[in-house]
Amino acid sequence: MGSIIVVKAFKLKDIENTFIIIDATGNQKVTDKLLKYKNKHAILLNVVDVPEVCDFYFMALTKNEPLQIAVSSSGASPTVAKYVRDKCQELIPENMETFLEELQSKRNNGIIEVEETLEVTRTISSKAYLVGCGLGDPELLTIRAYNIIKNVDVVLHDHLISDEIMSIVPKNVKKIFVGKEKGFHTQSQEEINRLIYKQIKKGHSVARLKSGDPFIFGRGAEELLYLTQKSIKTEVVPGISSSVSGPLMANIPITTRDYSNAFTVVTAHLKGNAINLEWVPMLKSGNHTVIVLMGLTKAKEIMEEAKALNINMSLPCAIISNASRKNQSVKIGTLANLHTLALSAKRPAIIVLGNVVNFLHELEKN
Amino acid sequence: MGSIIVVKAFKLKDIENTFIIIDATGNQKVTDKLLKYKNKHAILLNVVDVPEVCDFYFMALTKNEPLQIAVSSSGASPTVAKYVRDKCQELIPENMETFLEELQSKRNNGIIEVEETLEVTRTISSKAYLVGCGLGDPELLTIRAYNIIKNVDVVLHDHLISDEIMSIVPKNVKKIFVGKEKGFHTQSQEEINRLIYKQIKKGHSVARLKSGDPFIFGRGAEELLYLTQKSIKTEVVPGISSSVSGPLMANIPITTRDYSNAFTVVTAHLKGNAINLEWVPMLKSGNHTVIVLMGLTKAKEIMEEAKALNINMSLPCAIISNASRKNQSVKIGTLANLHTLALSAKRPAIIVLGNVVNFLHELEKN
Repeated sequence: MGSIIVVKAFKLKDIENTFIIIDATGNQKVTDKLLKYKNKHAILLNVVDVPEVCDFYFMALTKNEPLQIAVSSSGASPTVAKYVRDKCQELIPENMETFLEELQSKRNNGIIEVEETLEVTRTISSKAYLVGCGLGDPELLTIRAYNIIKNVDVVLHDHLISDEIMSIVPKNVKKIFVGKEKGFHTQSQEEINRLIYKQIKKGHSVARLKSGDPFIFGRGAEELLYLTQKSIKTEVVPGISSSVSGPLMANIPITTRDYSNAFTVVTAHLKGNAINLEWVPMLKSGNHTVIVLMGLTKAKEIMEEAKALNINMSLPCAIISNASRKNQSVKIGTLANLHTLALSAKRPAIIVLGNVVNFLHELEKN
Repeated sequence: MGSIIVVKAFKLKDIENTFIIIDATGNQKVTDKLLKYKNKHAILLNVVDVPEVCDFYFMALTKNEPLQIAVSSSGASPTVAKYVRDKCQELIPENMETFLEELQSKRNNGIIEVEETLEVTRTISSKAYLVGCGLGDPELLTIRAYNIIKNVDVVLHDHLISDEIMSIVPKNVKKIFVGKEKGFHTQSQEEINRLIYKQIKKGHSVARLKSGDPFIFGRGAEELLYLTQKSIKTEVVPGISSSVSGPLMANIPITTRDYSNAFTVVTAHLKGNAINLEWVPMLKSGNHTVIVLMGLTKAKEIMEEAKALNINMSLPCAIISNASRKNQSVKIGTLANLHTLALSAKRPAIIVLGNVVNFLHELEKN
């Protein structure tokens, strides 16, 4: 490919007093001459693309300082070396520089704590992910979530993560179940936080799998705060939330030009079995869609509150159970029969209240 | 593999008066005898695993009726034939049966309209997808969206679909731009609907790429209704919506145990430059997060309305521009300086109002 232009003929005189020589001529005669010369002279020779006669190789270096990683393929393929170098580069945590400077100043003061250094190194090298896993159908994972699940060392999961999603977690990944076991109590948020921290300290990358989106009724914020306080690099990955996309799976748009230009997501169920009915006045405008989570057991109270507030009881409603999963089911009715519908609905379910539910009737006309 | 059990020796007498013969003995002597017999008798012979002497082959059949597809590998590999058969099976649209019955009854009445039949066949064979493409970062596409984009014949896109996402659309896929061109008017919804229909009628599978989620301020419902009315099979694919996940990209949870147990998404901008301020009273409870779309140019009016309603003007707010994209930026303030913040914020942007914004300060303490 192309010809080599030799500006002048190479003479051995050219390399007198030279210790390191790189032969990039691609000219066999020059190489032979150099190899012969090397027998009698102390030189280090590199002949480009002829690794077997090289005394040294060029390495692909990372640009970080003070930590540097050099990768060599022993002359076989600079491309592969660069590729591996870049992969290594990604492994160096952002705050490694500060940490090394800190260690250097400690060392200058005569303090060397090997165990502590190892632990901090492992911690800052690993990363936590709070991963939104969507509705349950693995195809509704984001590519980001999928890639993380495929590449971490440990996943923490509970009963809200579908079997189909768990089946894509590689076999060699450690799976820690943090949900409710029959006869056992649910692990507290504090226990889950500590579990993530423990795995991170071992130098593992950890994905905490969250149903739906981590920041919508998912307590992801508490986990993020805890991990940040422990100086653990944490990434929150958004997911498809059943609260906003569950209706879509039943062909109900939560906003449309004709029926709704706003929506609200609420929980009916507060801590300690308390009920939240503060949002019921919003139903006055059927054009403001309200999506109610954990509302099945509170359906009667919701109806009674609506009646007391003189809300139109013919407001359309839908209950969507197991959105996106094979056993998805949809019940359609009005506020007047919400309680009856709720009695036979399967969990997990969301309730959609508003004129948008009428869109289904329009669709079905066809 | 295993031995052939010959119950009794084969005699030519056994096949007297037989027209179709399948030789599955695996016995060369029997085959030879049959081949010799065939020279003088009118028989159709199939010798299992010896395609070259067969007069006919078994085909892999689809189970649909009345339409059936038979696939043969000419005896080379029944496995391949079955595989191809299953692929063909997937191509048969669900409503093909009804359509064929309809055609049969027309034919019985002497009506044969070739052109119309072809058009309907193409239409019911193709499929439309209304695909939520998330925030712009291709990694935030769902796997479902990714697979659809990779496999359709045509995509319709506008300026809200990021270049990064467009770059994963295969080269051979037809790309139709339906956004605002400089100096030209935006294509109307009706024009976009007709474009999708036109491509479907050609027998193409069409993906209409939607920013965020198709059913959240996306007019996806209108497209679904139009296509359903035209009897076009349509799938709506949920996407990560900036309205609910945009705050997450800025580390702001829209619900948390301590700050909020409900959220509302509204548009400030209505048709014809009208303003929507109906939702402002919701700001009274700082624990009800409100996310405002298209609010930048209405910031002053929002502030004025809030003041008039005696809402606490120190309510925290955030403006998140270009969520998830490389040029994402976040501005933090209070209701009192919302207008000032809005003036310098880049579009597209969402406004988050509520105590959840304080979560950022808690995070940054660390």
